[in-house]
Amino acid sequence: MIRIGLDIGGTGIQIGAVNEENRIISEVSIPTRTDLSFEEQVDQMTSCIRGMLNGQDPELTMDHVVSIGAGIPGIANSDGVVVNCTNLGWRHTPLRAEFQKRIDKPFFVDNDANVAALAESVAGISAGTSSSIFITLGTGIGSGIVMGGKIWKGFHGIGGELGHMILELDGVPCTCGNRGCVERYCSATALIRMAREQVAAHPDSLILSMTEGDPMKISAKTVFDAKREGDPVAEKIFRRYISCLSQMIGGLVNLLDPEIIVLGGGVSKAGNLLLDAVREEMPRYVLYSEQPMPRVEIASLSSEAGIIGAAMLS
Amino acid sequence: MIRIGLDIGGTGIQIGAVNEENRIISEVSIPTRTDLSFEEQVDQMTSCIRGMLNGQDPELTMDHVVSIGAGIPGIANSDGVVVNCTNLGWRHTPLRAEFQKRIDKPFFVDNDANVAALAESVAGISAGTSSSIFITLGTGIGSGIVMGGKIWKGFHGIGGELGHMILELDGVPCTCGNRGCVERYCSATALIRMAREQVAAHPDSLILSMTEGDPMKISAKTVFDAKREGDPVAEKIFRRYISCLSQMIGGLVNLLDPEIIVLGGGVSKAGNLLLDAVREEMPRYVLYSEQPMPRVEIASLSSEAGIIGAAMLS
Repeated sequence: MIRIGLDIGGTGIQIGAVNEENRIISEVSIPTRTDLSFEEQVDQMTSCIRGMLNGQDPELTMDHVVSIGAGIPGIANSDGVVVNCTNLGWRHTPLRAEFQKRIDKPFFVDNDANVAALAESVAGISAGTSSSIFITLGTGIGSGIVMGGKIWKGFHGIGGELGHMILELDGVPCTCGNRGCVERYCSATALIRMAREQVAAHPDSLILSMTEGDPMKISAKTVFDAKREGDPVAEKIFRRYISCLSQMIGGLVNLLDPEIIVLGGGVSKAGNLLLDAVREEMPRYVLYSEQPMPRVEIASLSSEAGIIGAAMLS
Repeated sequence: MIRIGLDIGGTGIQIGAVNEENRIISEVSIPTRTDLSFEEQVDQMTSCIRGMLNGQDPELTMDHVVSIGAGIPGIANSDGVVVNCTNLGWRHTPLRAEFQKRIDKPFFVDNDANVAALAESVAGISAGTSSSIFITLGTGIGSGIVMGGKIWKGFHGIGGELGHMILELDGVPCTCGNRGCVERYCSATALIRMAREQVAAHPDSLILSMTEGDPMKISAKTVFDAKREGDPVAEKIFRRYISCLSQMIGGLVNLLDPEIIVLGGGVSKAGNLLLDAVREEMPRYVLYSEQPMPRVEIASLSSEAGIIGAAMLS
C-alpha cells in the first residue's frame, strides 16, 4: 500500500511514493510550467506519476496506490478546488476533478504549510503530540495548526495564515496591502531587511565584508554567521529578530497553548542558535509564564515533509 | 436533573440552578469575601447552594443535582485546582477537593471567559456552530475558544489569553509587564484611554460636556453616545478603536477562521453601532477576504452566561 504525495511549488514539483512507515520509497521532480494550460499541467503531473509506477518494481504499481495528495502554496477547499494559488496562476481551479479524470484515486489538496505541519506531526519532531503549530520562517511565513491528528484549516478554509496577523499597528507595509503583518518581522525576508537597514548605518559590520560590500547579497545565514563571529551589528539585528519572533510565538502560546511549536523554513537552519534564543526570550511574553508551556523545536523532516505530508492528506 | 453554576467574580458570586433546557430556574448571589480564609469561602458557597436546595421545591433538591461548575477570573487545571486567580488571592488552590468535601458531586472549574464562550455556544448566539471564538471587551480582554462543542484551553491550560497577544511592538505598556498587548487597544479601558487623550487635545468635544468636564468620568458609553450625536472627536476615537479591534479580529480569522466570532463585555452593549463598523472594517485585514469568512455577532446571554456556562462544564 502506497500513497502518492506532490509538493507543488512555484519553480518545481516534487512527487514521491510514500509507504506505510511514512517513508519516501520513490521520488521524481519536474519543473513547474506556468506557460502550460492547467489541463496540460495536470497531464504533466499524472504522466510523471505513471512513469514512477511503470511496473519495474512490482511493489510500486498503480494498484498499490490508495490515495494521492498535493500541497500547494495557496488555499484549497474540501471539494479539491484550488481557490487561490498565485504562484501557479490558479483561481477556483478544480484540481481534484481534473486529476481524477486521469487517475481514478481519492485525491486531496491542501496548503503547503498545513501539509508540512501534518508531516511533522505524524513522522517528524511533533509525532505523538496532540496539538502542534508549525511555522515556516522562509521568504514569507506559513503556518499549520494540527489538533487531534487533523489539520485545522478553519471553518471556511481560510485559516492558518499566521503571517498576516498584525504584530505592529501602522507598521511595515506588507505585500498583502496592510501594514505591520507578522511576515514583515519574522520571515527571512524581514531579517534581511533589518540587516540591510543596520549595515547602511554601520558599514563597518562584518556582514558587509561577508557579502563583498553588497547589501543585496545578505541572506539570513549571513546574519547568523556574522553573529557567531561576534559582530556587534549582527548581534543587534539578531536580538531584534528574536524579540519579534518571540513576541509572535508568545502570543500563540497565550491564545492557543499547543503541546509543541515547530519552526521550519530557511531561518530554522540556524538550529540551536535560533532555538536557544527563542526558548530564553519567548516566556517573557507568555502571561502564565510560571506554568508549563509549549516546547519549541526545529522541524526534523526538511524538504521531504512536503511529499510525506501531502501523501498523508485524507 | 439540574446542574449548579457558580459565577465567581472579584466582588460577587452568582449561584444558579440550571435545568435541562439550559435555563436558570433558581438564583442567589453573595458578596465575594476575600477577608475569609479559602475554606470559609467554600463553606459560604456550599451553604448558599444548600440553602437554594432547601426542599421547598420538590424538583430542586440535592438529589437532582448532577454536577457543579464554577467560572473564575483566573486559570484552573483539569484536576480542579485553581492555578491562579488574582482577584480572590487563590494560587494552587484545590477548589474541587474542598468543594467535594462538603458536597459530593462532580465538580468542574474553568476561566470565566471560557465559561461564557461555552454558554454562548450551547444556549446563545453561537449555538449550533462547530467552532467559535468569544471575546469579552470589558475592563480587560477575555477570550474563549470552542471547537467541536468543547472549550479549547490549551494543552497546558494556559490558552485563551487573547488579551496578551502583541498587537503593537513596543506599544502601550500593559499591566502584565509587556508592551503593546491587545488589551491595551481593544478593551473598554483602551477606548477610555483613547478618549481621554483626544479630549485633552480637543476640550470642545461633546464628550467632555457629557461628563461635566471631567475626563475621569468618561466611559465607553460616553464615546458611543457622543459619536451618535455627531461629535467629530468621538467619531475619531471610535474610528481608531474600530480599526484596532478589526485588526485584532482579522488576525484571528487569518489564524483560526472559526465559524463565528462573538463579542461580549461592556463595549458590546453598543450593539449595532459596534457590529456594523467591525463588519465593514474587519475584512480589510483578512488575507482571503473574497472568500466566505466568520460571522461577527454580539453575545446574546449577557450576565446569565456566567451561571449557565459554569453549569455546563464537564
